[in-house]
Amino acid sequence: MEFSAVVQGRRTVRRFKQIQVNESELRAMLNAARLSSSGGNLQPLRYIVIQKPELVSSIFANTAWGGLVKPRRNPEPGKTAPLTFIAVISPRNNNNTLHADAGAAIQSMTLTAYSLGLGCCWIGAFKRENVDVILELPEDLTVIYLLAAGYPDESPVQEDITAGMSANYYLDDNDVLHMPKFTVDTITQWR
Amino acid sequence: MEFSAVVQGRRTVRRFKQIQVNESELRAMLNAARLSSSGGNLQPLRYIVIQKPELVSSIFANTAWGGLVKPRRNPEPGKTAPLTFIAVISPRNNNNTLHADAGAAIQSMTLTAYSLGLGCCWIGAFKRENVDVILELPEDLTVIYLLAAGYPDESPVQEDITAGMSANYYLDDNDVLHMPKFTVDTITQWR
Repeated sequence: MEFSAVVQGRRTVRRFKQIQVNESELRAMLNAARLSSSGGNLQPLRYIVIQKPELVSSIFANTAWGGLVKPRRNPEPGKTAPLTFIAVISPRNNNNTLHADAGAAIQSMTLTAYSLGLGCCWIGAFKRENVDVILELPEDLTVIYLLAAGYPDESPVQEDITAGMSANYYLDDNDVLHMPKFTVDTITQWR
Repeated sequence: MEFSAVVQGRRTVRRFKQIQVNESELRAMLNAARLSSSGGNLQPLRYIVIQKPELVSSIFANTAWGGLVKPRRNPEPGKTAPLTFIAVISPRNNNNTLHADAGAAIQSMTLTAYSLGLGCCWIGAFKRENVDVILELPEDLTVIYLLAAGYPDESPVQEDITAGMSANYYLDDNDVLHMPKFTVDTITQWR
């Protein structure tokens, strides 16, 4: 897929078809993660791909989804919930640089997923202590972010906004998710 | 350019040709930044594109480059130094989430740059207080990261490493930069 089309078309997806993602697709995503920029090239992040149904359910029960479109857009287990999570693992004593590394890696993974016909939701709101226990992480590691991945069962649309307009995402009357993004001119100065 | 080739080919670049980047190329990079994932879609980041030679020089004087390959790989003003910086601006009271947002946006910009034949260096080591003053930022804002952008004047190579091997990047006898990255199998567990 052409690079610019991937950048333009990628949206966060919160409803997933109940079809499992292939290992080769996940490996392409993880390859993008490992090749991402990392401060000092230290590469402190690790990844756990979770597809066993009982583990996926346990993790799903500890996640929160799209606060602005609750309860209509909460994924339902067995209907629209993801069948795959990728847990991004960092040292427990993480810092700003590790979050920047994680952001870079997750952005690379979500773009790659879109290029393969998949969709993702980057989840920062989850019960971290519970998920760390579910994954039986050693004491010095923690889940810094979760990424849900799967075949999308919705088609969110992006719309342009300018200064002073609301960036709140919303569902329209046809249950389509709208994702407002500030234009380049709104967010950029030239010197 | 095909998406997978961009992911596979992108490297950090620290030597730049002395040719200025076009506005259309920079706009493509900023478009990728604005469409990146942002926690709660709040989009708190702003961008200043800096191309005026005196401003670029002032900022360059406050940056540190590739600690492991000093002094050989320090860019030289007028020879290999960047002619464009993009300053990523955040609220001064930034937090982990803002660094993750910045990581996602910068990764999108660097991938876009590569797709257009450009190269970038994501710079986290710079004298932030000085750069904030040079850019005359209001008190509640700060430069969270700098991104140098331009036409690459070097061709770094990526190499695979596995657990226990050094991730230190290095220059070989031909002055080529080698960037070791852990393989997918080294950094991933499957459950």
